[in-house]
Amino acid sequence: MSNLSVVELPILQGEVVACCPPVTSAELSETDATRMAAMFKALGDPVRLRLFSKVASHPGGEACVCDIQDVGVSQPTVSHHLKKLREAGLLSSERRGTWVYYRVEPSVLAAMSMLLGSAAS
Amino acid sequence: MSNLSVVELPILQGEVVACCPPVTSAELSETDATRMAAMFKALGDPVRLRLFSKVASHPGGEACVCDIQDVGVSQPTVSHHLKKLREAGLLSSERRGTWVYYRVEPSVLAAMSMLLGSAAS
Repeated sequence: MSNLSVVELPILQGEVVACCPPVTSAELSETDATRMAAMFKALGDPVRLRLFSKVASHPGGEACVCDIQDVGVSQPTVSHHLKKLREAGLLSSERRGTWVYYRVEPSVLAAMSMLLGSAAS
Repeated sequence: MSNLSVVELPILQGEVVACCPPVTSAELSETDATRMAAMFKALGDPVRLRLFSKVASHPGGEACVCDIQDVGVSQPTVSHHLKKLREAGLLSSERRGTWVYYRVEPSVLAAMSMLLGSAAS
């Protein structure tokens, strides 16, 4: 009975995400819901959320993959989760020499926070 | 290689959720990550996120299940999604007469928003 279909998310590295008004003020459109749900889903796994928080709380908001591997899973699993976070637009990555560095995308976080934000007021 | 195990979430209706400092300021513990990931996961589905926004944006922050069924899926699917949102602590529900009414849990939303909040500053 579902009329959902797979969509490609239009999120590119560096793109400013300007979505959406707080959920308490307006109903999400189907398009915006699809877009935002993908971001929430990316944080919907405990290991992925811990990796994300390790990057976000690292000095300078950036972490080498070598700094954030102590989450109790294998290195390939860490890489898999970091890829999912990157695909959802929550992290950007850059290879410098031997290592890949990850950085939080503040505009994406701000969009998620804003969507949930005013509900408490 | 995973050392995760299934845990029961200690969220009860009406409980004040006081978790956690912003991800940019401190690393999430394994326990907090498990707890918060369950909430993000609940919003990680487009239909569920739309239903949630319909409740949140409804006048008075409360909606009858009869008001929010126009999301293009069957009524049993709507009920399933509403149950998931309730289990994650994002909505509370109350039966009044024929209908069940859903209400957003502001403290849970505030906790999620706070976790993501300061990342943009």
